[in-house]
Amino acid sequence: MNTALEPTTEGDFLLNEGRPFRLVSGSELASVTLRYAIYGELNAQRDNAILVGHALSGSARVADWWPQLFVSDNVSDNDDAGVFDLSRHCIIGTNIIGSCYGSTGPQFINPATDQPYGAQFPLVTVRDWVQAQAQFVRSLGIEKLHGVIGGSIGGMQAIQWAIDHPEMIERSVAIGVAPLSAMGLALNHLQRLAIRNDPLWNRGDYNTDNPPRAGLAQARAIAMCSYKSAELFSERYSRQPNRNGEDPHRSLDERFDIGGYLDYQGEIFTRRFDANAYLLITKAMDNFDPAHGYDSEAAALRRITAPVLLVGISSDWLFPAEEVKALSRRMIAAGVATEYEELASSHGHDGFLADAGSLAPAIRRFFPVINHAASESLPNLAGHRLTESPRREIN
Amino acid sequence: MNTALEPTTEGDFLLNEGRPFRLVSGSELASVTLRYAIYGELNAQRDNAILVGHALSGSARVADWWPQLFVSDNVSDNDDAGVFDLSRHCIIGTNIIGSCYGSTGPQFINPATDQPYGAQFPLVTVRDWVQAQAQFVRSLGIEKLHGVIGGSIGGMQAIQWAIDHPEMIERSVAIGVAPLSAMGLALNHLQRLAIRNDPLWNRGDYNTDNPPRAGLAQARAIAMCSYKSAELFSERYSRQPNRNGEDPHRSLDERFDIGGYLDYQGEIFTRRFDANAYLLITKAMDNFDPAHGYDSEAAALRRITAPVLLVGISSDWLFPAEEVKALSRRMIAAGVATEYEELASSHGHDGFLADAGSLAPAIRRFFPVINHAASESLPNLAGHRLTESPRREIN
Repeated sequence: MNTALEPTTEGDFLLNEGRPFRLVSGSELASVTLRYAIYGELNAQRDNAILVGHALSGSARVADWWPQLFVSDNVSDNDDAGVFDLSRHCIIGTNIIGSCYGSTGPQFINPATDQPYGAQFPLVTVRDWVQAQAQFVRSLGIEKLHGVIGGSIGGMQAIQWAIDHPEMIERSVAIGVAPLSAMGLALNHLQRLAIRNDPLWNRGDYNTDNPPRAGLAQARAIAMCSYKSAELFSERYSRQPNRNGEDPHRSLDERFDIGGYLDYQGEIFTRRFDANAYLLITKAMDNFDPAHGYDSEAAALRRITAPVLLVGISSDWLFPAEEVKALSRRMIAAGVATEYEELASSHGHDGFLADAGSLAPAIRRFFPVINHAASESLPNLAGHRLTESPRREIN
Repeated sequence: MNTALEPTTEGDFLLNEGRPFRLVSGSELASVTLRYAIYGELNAQRDNAILVGHALSGSARVADWWPQLFVSDNVSDNDDAGVFDLSRHCIIGTNIIGSCYGSTGPQFINPATDQPYGAQFPLVTVRDWVQAQAQFVRSLGIEKLHGVIGGSIGGMQAIQWAIDHPEMIERSVAIGVAPLSAMGLALNHLQRLAIRNDPLWNRGDYNTDNPPRAGLAQARAIAMCSYKSAELFSERYSRQPNRNGEDPHRSLDERFDIGGYLDYQGEIFTRRFDANAYLLITKAMDNFDPAHGYDSEAAALRRITAPVLLVGISSDWLFPAEEVKALSRRMIAAGVATEYEELASSHGHDGFLADAGSLAPAIRRFFPVINHAASESLPNLAGHRLTESPRREIN
């Protein structure tokens, strides 16, 4: 990450002015804050805002984990990178409810018990996230977003926006995503199993000073296999012994390089992520289904009025390009102005981040030029507490 | 499994007449017995024997887990099935060292401590298994096997036989196998991690009455994803809720059908398999490499004199067909008479068992007709204890 792009504004938005927030399931959260980050500025027409949805472990700070989305002066190693120009576009990121990057989640205090929610945090859905985002967007005086864009779970949000709030978006871009197929459900199930099998998990009521790190690390290691591709692993790790000098032929403890890589990825993940948040978000990912809340998937898709760009990633194993393409066909059948593009990448599901440079032209083509420069400063955001958080590395 | 084919003979063969058995690593096992099962009978020339190598969780009792290999009168649902005819062929199966189906393994008593070996059991390799099999085969008075055949780890044995004992085999058939690539190494690593993270594992010295079941079940569940294919999972489980009536939208505990399937597969596996054996065998699978013990892979492959049939499985994710094909090209470059066939199957790695009927014609073509009927009864096997074990279900 060679960018240090900081948000123009960053803070916490209190949903429903502090009154309870009702989830689609019927459960209520007594009070919900949404951590947001805004890059660039709204123009006078307030029609230059693009909402970016984050993936499982992302945050509101879009430029921390998707820097290639921004046209930047110091683009060096990839000339193709950059989609949004902050002299014209205003980029909005919000952390999803249930996560651990600032928005209300299982680590927050449950006012009913004065203890962290932990396992008491209700199941959340992509629809809940989008509902909360829509309220925040309206609070900014935005009637219609220039677009919603995201990869993976972020792409689920982009699709859900098009279904739930057709009048509020100009266009939607969803990358590497579709309703999860059985293999994807299987892989998420295995990850949750790893966490739940860790005795420190304690059915979700763990000591946050001694959380179920081994289980969470294992979950992340499984996930890494589903985010990358066999091709990439072969290129990078092949059958090399672990780079620290282990000899996998000598003992059970000694690893091939890929084993060392997975363990390392698992370990560093536990320093920045919460196990209960992981369970909730993978569950929401499983449960994403356009039909949710409507009579059928077709009925849901027929609500869409915005053009939709779906991007499949050639080596994606978690959301195979074929599944994304099939969704695009169902959208077309439902009368949606749908484009499908395939990103040729050996990076697997992570291709939308790793090969963002190759992705940029397709997204740029889908977004018309905005002639109104961003000029107006942000409206005064009642209820928004501005914070200066230290930058955190997010992959 | 609709066959109840029983071995002609079944028993335990004492390697080195009870003297220590030296592994390729240099470690020694004080005493090794090899559980074997023989179907049909040797002919007078003793040239009709085919050794069948088993996969990770298999046993010497070939007909229990690969019944479709046998030409049988009651072939009903698949006319194509059947390769070997017990009126002509003699089929030999042996359980691999380190397993838990009768041959010496970590559950055996270590004479040095009078306790089960557990974590003290040394790492074993495919070469060790083949070494032991060769000694057993010689003890039967067989100078040359009509063939060695196997899928997965059984296929590794077939390849290793061709390299280590070129003078002792007429042909070799290896299905769905090659040196494991980085993704395969990753998946095996994750499985071992699951076992080792189970606190009951206790660094391998667990109480066999209270073994690390949760970890082993989790390992098996991960493995099932690598043995099957996304296509098969979609066909069979789709996004259906678990068939027992759970609603995955309702709570964290409630699963999709694929989750219920994986948990069930994990649970039943713990009733029949040992965690330490699982660690040892997956490690041997990782470490399989034709170059092992030779100057290079090419040097090893140049030793092969028998024709080799390699079969890739179209939907195999653990050992992609492309990897098997690449191995066939390296064999051809080394001067080996190599045939490559691809089995079109949606069953993934398990295709060699699940679609054995489609596989049979290719194997039959590779095996010439034997004109000598099996007539001679088995030689008296000194040191073999004949046993009558109850039949165990093996997938």
